[in-house]
Amino acid sequence: MTLFVDMDEVMADTYGAHIEIYNRDYQESLTHDICMGSEVWQKVPVERQNSVRQHATNVGFFRNLEPIADSKEVLKELSKKYELFIASAAMQFPNSLIEKSEWLDEHFPFVPWQNRILCGHKHILKGDILIDDRSYNLESFEGRSLLFTSPHNVNSNGFERVNNWQEVALKLL
Amino acid sequence: MTLFVDMDEVMADTYGAHIEIYNRDYQESLTHDICMGSEVWQKVPVERQNSVRQHATNVGFFRNLEPIADSKEVLKELSKKYELFIASAAMQFPNSLIEKSEWLDEHFPFVPWQNRILCGHKHILKGDILIDDRSYNLESFEGRSLLFTSPHNVNSNGFERVNNWQEVALKLL
Repeated sequence: MTLFVDMDEVMADTYGAHIEIYNRDYQESLTHDICMGSEVWQKVPVERQNSVRQHATNVGFFRNLEPIADSKEVLKELSKKYELFIASAAMQFPNSLIEKSEWLDEHFPFVPWQNRILCGHKHILKGDILIDDRSYNLESFEGRSLLFTSPHNVNSNGFERVNNWQEVALKLL
Repeated sequence: MTLFVDMDEVMADTYGAHIEIYNRDYQESLTHDICMGSEVWQKVPVERQNSVRQHATNVGFFRNLEPIADSKEVLKELSKKYELFIASAAMQFPNSLIEKSEWLDEHFPFVPWQNRILCGHKHILKGDILIDDRSYNLESFEGRSLLFTSPHNVNSNGFERVNNWQEVALKLL
C-alpha cells in the first residue's frame, strides 16, 4: 500500500510559524483561535497582508518549522507498514527545496530520498492513500483521501477527516 | 493525456558534461564514441572514477548543463497538445534542486512550477506517457514508455526507443 503525506500543515507547522512571525514583526498577539477558519494573512490588517504572504519566501522559513505533534512517531510506524512517500507542493518556492530536503533529513531521517516528492499538482500521484490539508489536492486523488485538520480548513466538508496524528494512527496502524 | 519527461540525458546533456569536465580536469580527450554503452565513470581509470561520480555534487553542475538538441522546440509544441510534466529524480542531490528549478526557468519557461516534479522513485507517477533514459524508471510505469537514447543505454532492449527529439515529435505530435 502506497501512502502519500503532505508536508506543510500536516508534518510541519507552517500555520503556527505565520502567526509567530507576524506577532514578532508587528508586536501583536494573534492566536490560532482568532484565525480559525481562515488563512493567517486574511486575519491581519489589509496593509500587512502582503508581508504575511511573503513569509514563505524568507530564507530559513521552511528549515525552521516545528514538526506537528506526534508526526515523527506515527510516521515512523507508518513507514514500516506502508510504502511511505512525502509529497509537498514545494515548486512554488524554489528556495524552499533545499530547506525541505534538510528539514526531512533532520526530523524524518527514516524517509529516504527515493521517497520524497517535491511537486506542484498532486493529481499525478498514483497510490492508495493521501493525507493532505488542502481539499483541492484531495479532490483529484484516486485513492483514499484524508483531510488533516489545520486551522484554515476547519469548516471544510466532504472528506474523511483526521484531527491529529493520533487519529491517523488509529485509522491506519 | 499526461506526458512525463525526465530531465537528465533527455532534456539536459548530463552525459556530455561529465565528459567535458573529465577532459578539462585530467587533460584527456575522452569522447562519446569511446563511452558508448557505458556510464562515463566506467570508462576512466579506476583511481579517477570517484572524481567523475562526484561531478553531480559540484555547485553549478546542473545549472550549467546544455539543453539536448531540439528539446526546447519540441517540448514547447508538446506542451500545447499534452498535459506536460517534467519529472526528475533529483532528490538524490539536494544541491541540484534549486539549480534544476532555475535551469527550467531559463530554458523551459513554458513549463510552470505546477508541472515540475522532483522525486526519487518514479513508479508513483500516474499518467499516459513517460520519456526517460533509464530502463528502471520505465519498467514500473503503467503507461506508454519511451526510452530516450543516451550513450549509456544504446544496448538496452525491450522498450520503444526514441533516438532524439525529432523522433519524439514524429511519434507524439
